[in-house]
Amino acid sequence: MSLLLRDTENYGNIYIEDAAIVEIGCAAYDADTVIDAKRKALVPGFVNTHTHAAMTLFRGYADDLPLQTWLQDWIWPAEAKLTGEDVYWGTKLACLEMIRTGTTTFNDMYWHVLESAKAVDEMGIRGVISNVFIDVDGGSGGSDEETQRENKRLITKITKDYSDRVIPALGPHAIYIVSEESLLWIAEFAREEDLLVHIHVSETEQEVKDCIEKTGMRPVEYLDRLGFLGPNVVSAHCVWLDDNEISLLAKHNVKIAHTPTSNMKLAVGQKMRYPCLRAAGVSISIGTDGCASNNNLNMLESAKFASLSQKSATNQPTMMPACDAFSMVTKHGAQALRIGEGGGEIIEGALADLLLIDLQLPGMTPLHNLDSNLIYASSNCVDTTICDGVVLMEGGVVDGEEEILMKASETAFDLVNRRQ
Amino acid sequence: MSLLLRDTENYGNIYIEDAAIVEIGCAAYDADTVIDAKRKALVPGFVNTHTHAAMTLFRGYADDLPLQTWLQDWIWPAEAKLTGEDVYWGTKLACLEMIRTGTTTFNDMYWHVLESAKAVDEMGIRGVISNVFIDVDGGSGGSDEETQRENKRLITKITKDYSDRVIPALGPHAIYIVSEESLLWIAEFAREEDLLVHIHVSETEQEVKDCIEKTGMRPVEYLDRLGFLGPNVVSAHCVWLDDNEISLLAKHNVKIAHTPTSNMKLAVGQKMRYPCLRAAGVSISIGTDGCASNNNLNMLESAKFASLSQKSATNQPTMMPACDAFSMVTKHGAQALRIGEGGGEIIEGALADLLLIDLQLPGMTPLHNLDSNLIYASSNCVDTTICDGVVLMEGGVVDGEEEILMKASETAFDLVNRRQ
Repeated sequence: MSLLLRDTENYGNIYIEDAAIVEIGCAAYDADTVIDAKRKALVPGFVNTHTHAAMTLFRGYADDLPLQTWLQDWIWPAEAKLTGEDVYWGTKLACLEMIRTGTTTFNDMYWHVLESAKAVDEMGIRGVISNVFIDVDGGSGGSDEETQRENKRLITKITKDYSDRVIPALGPHAIYIVSEESLLWIAEFAREEDLLVHIHVSETEQEVKDCIEKTGMRPVEYLDRLGFLGPNVVSAHCVWLDDNEISLLAKHNVKIAHTPTSNMKLAVGQKMRYPCLRAAGVSISIGTDGCASNNNLNMLESAKFASLSQKSATNQPTMMPACDAFSMVTKHGAQALRIGEGGGEIIEGALADLLLIDLQLPGMTPLHNLDSNLIYASSNCVDTTICDGVVLMEGGVVDGEEEILMKASETAFDLVNRRQ
Repeated sequence: MSLLLRDTENYGNIYIEDAAIVEIGCAAYDADTVIDAKRKALVPGFVNTHTHAAMTLFRGYADDLPLQTWLQDWIWPAEAKLTGEDVYWGTKLACLEMIRTGTTTFNDMYWHVLESAKAVDEMGIRGVISNVFIDVDGGSGGSDEETQRENKRLITKITKDYSDRVIPALGPHAIYIVSEESLLWIAEFAREEDLLVHIHVSETEQEVKDCIEKTGMRPVEYLDRLGFLGPNVVSAHCVWLDDNEISLLAKHNVKIAHTPTSNMKLAVGQKMRYPCLRAAGVSISIGTDGCASNNNLNMLESAKFASLSQKSATNQPTMMPACDAFSMVTKHGAQALRIGEGGGEIIEGALADLLLIDLQLPGMTPLHNLDSNLIYASSNCVDTTICDGVVLMEGGVVDGEEEILMKASETAFDLVNRRQ
């Protein structure tokens, strides 16, 4: 299959064959599909490095509450009633929202992972999918060995049953809810099987205090001692870090998924130490987190929150300029999720995960600076979304949208009623 | 002229005659125009209480710079070349963006005010329009008396030449650039003519330090001593306030235009003291500020920034819940700009400044809570914008959009090239 994007504003013609960008700025070749890209700019698809996709079902369900009330009285009781069918429709809705806002790859951690995998496969985007791994405090109900076996089975099944776009990973939820034995097993198994590991680290101060009390070490030091840290680890939040932890993250080339919007909404009490992390050379990308704590999956909006909250926290309007925020939602995200050579960039030979940005919008006018308009002015500007060389949205239209909205809506109400 | 909004999701049928809401939840009367509002929610139009509309021309022109570099090397030299024609097209672009994102009334301060007035009149929205009033440090080049005379002339002309939707006001830029004599004159003239006064107050710490050095008082104390404060004063920013200043603002019923996005982007160094201001009973609405420092005019996005930045600053996820943020962008804004009885609410007899929200969007699905979805999830959800009983956008389409985008774009490039 071939695809020609004709006359993009910034790169001219783009020729795509199967899943890859073949030629940039080429002649107007014949192709199976030709898209008129006049007055549209070509950019790489966005990469969301931390979310819980199916939590779209809880969008607006319980906001503005103290953290513990929110979790114990609202989210956990509803999640206790969660079925695979719920996760399927919640993930479909999430993928729809991502396609509309330009995300072509996301890093997910949630329950009923085979249903997420099915949804991602059907929707055509790229997903790194991990099941929540919890084996203490009654989490998933299983012992550490049972949980390990079950995760192994799920990974094998995802690899076997779904397209290459559905990438299985390990999802140890957090150090306070996964046993030391399982963390060791996960690190080992991930190395053997070359898997990504997706974990929450130091979102709250309480987590750090508890870890120090239990182990005598801070969370990143504890993970380092276990031999858990490595370039395959995507670590969400990382708000409460000291200097030594920053050095350890840099040393092991751990990838941070920065979640500015969620951190502000849940009031985690501190801003991620971006200037220090950057100075240490740590790779930082951006995650939206789930829709119960953001409440959307819009990467450009999260990038604006990232940049503005760092300018504000450091009192420096020069902090995290638009071009850096843009790299975080494209190239750095693609590197964190290992989307192959040239991932998150417009390069011949790279995977064709691409967007056409509508430049005929007030927020794109005037076009003094594309990065600036994308990050600061116009979070709803994606006209066409292409993933793996396949057009998933053109002119703002995604096939099957109406059914997904209806089913997800029904599913969400059914789920929250079920808990009562 | 009559207008029927048929079958809104939350209010049923709405019958509008001329500029006013006549009946809510009524039978499906015949009307000159009927709009099918199925799967759409009715909400009041948003009110933006602080912006510089024509600065859309500088969107993305100079970001991520230190404040003084930004002003002295980029904005001021370009503004020095500004013509009435520039302001006209910049304001048209701003109005277009506001209509698309649901703002029906805005509070403006900029140069060449008659051109802004013309643009607002043509575009059909409601604008409180003030010319920048500067009479020291070589501002507009005139003496205080000349500047006063000129402002009087402009206000008379706006009142005479344009529709009632174009509301003239006084725009003393800030205490450090308007003479004490002129501040006194403005306060007096505004009372005589029943005018709104639009001023920047305590955006930066420097302004407070300079004021103390010059007058021995903090800015709000200084304005109080001049007899300047009153319920007709809309005071933008108000970031650096002490307890006594908060009491003075409450006592005089001054309206604060909170500008969270701009304050974060320009790194003004502190968060507005929302909990204290609220406890004191000060009226707080939201402004986007101009597009050189935000960089858009999207009120829902600014409301999300307001809520999340207050949650984050206070470490309280319960701070500024969605319903409060929603009141700030509707009712409180309408009160600040004195949009008549029931302004910013859905009430019979109130002006028909209304929006239909598209509920068939991922960000609106599921609809557990409309306020929450509006503030946190979906800043691009306005399907239909009605101002003064007139439909300005239906189904996302604004008449004449293409010409405005083209002309504003040409004007912007011409302007920034002219400065060199």
